Amino acid sequence: MTGIGAAGLDPALLAAAEAAADLAGGVIRPLFRSPLLVEAKGDASPVTEADRGAERAMRALLAERFPAHGLWGEEYGRERAEAEWLWVLDPIDGTRAFVTGRPLFGTLIGLLHRGRPVLGLIDQPVTGERWIGLAGHPTRFRAPLGGTPRCRPCARLAEAELSCTSPDMFTPGDRPGFERLRGAARRLTWGGDCYAYGLLALGLVDLVCESTMKPWDWAALVPVVEGAGGRVTGWRGEPLTLEADGRVLAVGDPALLPEAVRLLGAA
Amino acid sequence: MTGIGAAGLDPALLAAAEAAADLAGGVIRPLFRSPLLVEAKGDASPVTEADRGAERAMRALLAERFPAHGLWGEEYGRERAEAEWLWVLDPIDGTRAFVTGRPLFGTLIGLLHRGRPVLGLIDQPVTGERWIGLAGHPTRFRAPLGGTPRCRPCARLAEAELSCTSPDMFTPGDRPGFERLRGAARRLTWGGDCYAYGLLALGLVDLVCESTMKPWDWAALVPVVEGAGGRVTGWRGEPLTLEADGRVLAVGDPALLPEAVRLLGAA
Repeated sequence: MTGIGAAGLDPALLAAAEAAADLAGGVIRPLFRSPLLVEAKGDASPVTEADRGAERAMRALLAERFPAHGLWGEEYGRERAEAEWLWVLDPIDGTRAFVTGRPLFGTLIGLLHRGRPVLGLIDQPVTGERWIGLAGHPTRFRAPLGGTPRCRPCARLAEAELSCTSPDMFTPGDRPGFERLRGAARRLTWGGDCYAYGLLALGLVDLVCESTMKPWDWAALVPVVEGAGGRVTGWRGEPLTLEADGRVLAVGDPALLPEAVRLLGAA
Repeated sequence: MTGIGAAGLDPALLAAAEAAADLAGGVIRPLFRSPLLVEAKGDASPVTEADRGAERAMRALLAERFPAHGLWGEEYGRERAEAEWLWVLDPIDGTRAFVTGRPLFGTLIGLLHRGRPVLGLIDQPVTGERWIGLAGHPTRFRAPLGGTPRCRPCARLAEAELSCTSPDMFTPGDRPGFERLRGAARRLTWGGDCYAYGLLALGLVDLVCESTMKPWDWAALVPVVEGAGGRVTGWRGEPLTLEADGRVLAVGDPALLPEAVRLLGAA
């Protein structure tokens, strides 16, 4: 039986998430920058195979250890989605980074308890970096490249480093709000996918603002960022839920939230 | 005496470039994701110190070994720029990546002989990757993350992976040409700085198109890309020179060049 007691989450949940990330990394690493990938520029099949193989391996492990839990992955959809515990998986978040050989993609493993993210893992299988977030606990970070999992203070937007994966992720309706936020921030860096949220949890980025995000894109990020002192919400500052509209705002310093929400001006 | 003979460049030149990159890495690595950098969000001084310290170390080494050579660095300007041999240095290409903790910036060391790039080194001091290009020789790559230094065939723009550091690097006059190229390419990834050219030399990216590039941004890239089978030119397909207008086009497959130049339609 699994549950959240006074001592926090059952340790078997985190052990399973780490084992699943290890399996996914074993599938993904051999394909990173591989000749198969290099030759396949007009054909997505090796990417698909890395994505699918990694998700299959994670699902098999989680289903075996927690047969009553739900599973929701980008590649294979939902099973038992009404269960109290729901694992949300993205085997390769940042496919474009993966395809072009940038070690900034990640495997995302999130666990929702009655719709609330309680465990999140971001794994970068090439650099060996791994962020682990557990609701109510400080975020941990396996740091071969250095870094400390703690958001930095940054109470003024004019001092904030903003990050966003791509200008192409916004709908025309999202664009004016994003442009207002961007105009108020100190600086914007493009690119990053889940890695940008990891950098926010290391106190190197202050804001991430994105759109058209699916639950498997954000579920794992919430415990990682919040355990490092930050916040992840929708564009109105509301908690993210499975019914969320895909617009995501992450701040390292919660003091940034009201002004960011005001500028985004989301209806 | 240094020179280009039948046997190619004097090996002392490459040895010096590698030693200079080692010194720069020693200055830069301790500041990557350091608390100094984390605390300095509103203040560029640790970045400046990494940039300047790395350039000073490289200049001192090169001036000692080759007192007659010229030096041109982003931070400390030109010395003996009229010399037959000119070292062109960018201690941290991709400052924004460095500041935000992304291991995709690079130290660039280029050597021009009578204005022609004959040696280029791209060094990523955090991942340990190093690309070495020597005119007339196949590019070499120190590859802790994997990869083979050879551009891939890609004769059709519709199959090409395009990369560009930022939509903000184009002047209004550059923009229409870039948009035409982008519209014809298969896919665009933002971000990357020098690392994108390294990925092109690994056959993972097919095109890089940028603007407002200085000599220290491109000098080192030319021998790396061309030694891997690609081409680096201006937007009219012309060789880059110290008088170039800052618009840079790199292709992994030279067959892409005429169509890319036509779409860019640069005056």
